[in-house]
Amino acid sequence: MKEIKLFLTDVDGVWTDGGMYYDNEGNELKKFNTSDSAGVLFLRMMDIPLGIITGEDTEIVRRRAKKLGIDILHMGVRNKLSVVKKICEEMNISLPEVAYLGDDIIDIPVFEEVGLSAAPADSPDYVRKHADWTLEKHGGEGVFREFVERYLSERGLLDEALQRYLSKIR
Amino acid sequence: MKEIKLFLTDVDGVWTDGGMYYDNEGNELKKFNTSDSAGVLFLRMMDIPLGIITGEDTEIVRRRAKKLGIDILHMGVRNKLSVVKKICEEMNISLPEVAYLGDDIIDIPVFEEVGLSAAPADSPDYVRKHADWTLEKHGGEGVFREFVERYLSERGLLDEALQRYLSKIR
Amino acid sequence: MKEIKLFLTDVDGVWTDGGMYYDNEGNELKKFNTSDSAGVLFLRMMDIPLGIITGEDTEIVRRRAKKLGIDILHMGVRNKLSVVKKICEEMNISLPEVAYLGDDIIDIPVFEEVGLSAAPADSPDYVRKHADWTLEKHGGEGVFREFVERYLSERGLLDEALQRYLSKIR
Amino acid sequence: MKEIKLFLTDVDGVWTDGGMYYDNEGNELKKFNTSDSAGVLFLRMMDIPLGIITGEDTEIVRRRAKKLGIDILHMGVRNKLSVVKKICEEMNISLPEVAYLGDDIIDIPVFEEVGLSAAPADSPDYVRKHADWTLEKHGGEGVFREFVERYLSERGLLDEALQRYLSKIR
Repeated sequence: MKEIKLFLTDVDGVWTDGGMYYDNEGNELKKFNTSDSAGVLFLRMMDIPLGIITGEDTEIVRRRAKKLGIDILHMGVRNKLSVVKKICEEMNISLPEVAYLGDDIIDIPVFEEVGLSAAPADSPDYVRKHADWTLEKHGGEGVFREFVERYLSERGLLDEALQRYLSKIR
Repeated sequence: MKEIKLFLTDVDGVWTDGGMYYDNEGNELKKFNTSDSAGVLFLRMMDIPLGIITGEDTEIVRRRAKKLGIDILHMGVRNKLSVVKKICEEMNISLPEVAYLGDDIIDIPVFEEVGLSAAPADSPDYVRKHADWTLEKHGGEGVFREFVERYLSERGLLDEALQRYLSKIR
Repeated sequence: MKEIKLFLTDVDGVWTDGGMYYDNEGNELKKFNTSDSAGVLFLRMMDIPLGIITGEDTEIVRRRAKKLGIDILHMGVRNKLSVVKKICEEMNISLPEVAYLGDDIIDIPVFEEVGLSAAPADSPDYVRKHADWTLEKHGGEGVFREFVERYLSERGLLDEALQRYLSKIR
Repeated sequence: MKEIKLFLTDVDGVWTDGGMYYDNEGNELKKFNTSDSAGVLFLRMMDIPLGIITGEDTEIVRRRAKKLGIDILHMGVRNKLSVVKKICEEMNISLPEVAYLGDDIIDIPVFEEVGLSAAPADSPDYVRKHADWTLEKHGGEGVFREFVERYLSERGLLDEALQRYLSKIR
């Protein structure tokens, strides 16, 4: 397993089950899973930056990113690969050093270029086949955490991340 | 598989799991699944028009239709078959050229007349038996996308739809 | 199967999965399932009255009852059996002519007295054992509709209810 | 099974499925399960106090605690064990007399010190292994009720709790 210097993730269908709640007054909701916040914390413990790239553009995601302390946030993106390339340039890293989690057609071009790509178990076949890993969880069940844990585990770093986290709350 | 010139769909129990969220202040929510938006896009890529026919009449569905760029929208419908016939007249197409997705008793009269009818897996037995296809997914799990994909696949058009979509986002 | 002259039902855990959504501003939501509305319509087609008895007292349930045209509505009830008895007196019927659907401890005293009692599959063992029927569905999955359909079916009336309903929408 | 003099519980992932619903206007929701309220009532019937300790700080949980009549409420907690110890001092009880239900890393230090610890079935392996019991239910499915019922059952007290509860509503 090569070293990843940046994690990037989609939101809808990954941090959520794809659900978009609409009301009668122009408001909208998304349901996140607090389980994924441990994935964010594990990356922070290991000093690996994390960013969000999503096709939607909502206050919902802006608030969630802020709550979790995620600085790299690109919303309303149509061509995700071009954004990933731009971020790599700014951070002076290469595409093979990027890990990316997505679930649908719009994510395929990114899957094909980054160093490590993954999709939730409930992602369509014709999407998942372009990703390196099909994860066990569905979108919204903590699949982002699973992605981070599996990467850290294969690098032999998961226990260290866990101990660092525990040392902060004891 | 004959050629379909118009897709029509119900909303509650199809684009949702049938859930109607009520609050204490007169508001209501429905939970859509972003997965179904790929079905909308596939039809657009193949120049097949899409319409919504639903018994409920809510701002929720009006907003969702607008978000997805769906122009044919009939709400508060009691006799769905008469509305389908009216749309066919306006578009100068025949009932056998229409595909329809519904999940409950109110959809049976339409199932019996259109060219291709389908119901989600969790639709009642006595409803599903009137439909040509029982799909694998439940309402709200992306069953509309499944319907579109299965039709395009049986016509040998799914890969073309996918490539056209990908060419827009690369 | 004896003739039932009144259906009564609990709400939380029966018409819902027991979920109570709280927000930060004093509002609350419940998620109903449109599938259950066919149960309400079947009873109406067969001229069997329907009432709601619930321990909670919310605008949510008042609105849902109004939407479905249910006139008998008792909320904030602590002793459900005494309310059932009062309704029976007013309607001049006896407890054995009442069918009741509930899911928890508070429903046990009613289960023991009415003519037909039922509980969802996910109700606790020590509650279900007091009910005549354990239904197949969980709360919020359309278990009220299942209850009505099973009763009508055992009385040989389900097809008639369905045909009457269809004749209204053709 | 030793005697427990205080039950303490986490909220997110225990009383909920971990879901955090965000909207576009700065509001947030959590989905509780009314099934758990029977667990609260069983403890009250048996005069066992109950408290909530959670890392989040929301009006949502304050309202839910108030609705259920729970007086011990600690929110925004980073070091849960220090709070548990403080409560024990105030109540003049020892850590082995405390039962605690939690689901994630932040709960591990408490699991290791209290007399009885439990985690939902969907809690991570590396968390559950620190708890005395892995319960059958997932967070949000009534796992708090399961915890209380299992404790009372192992102490031979469940039927008494149930009878006391029934005597209040007959």
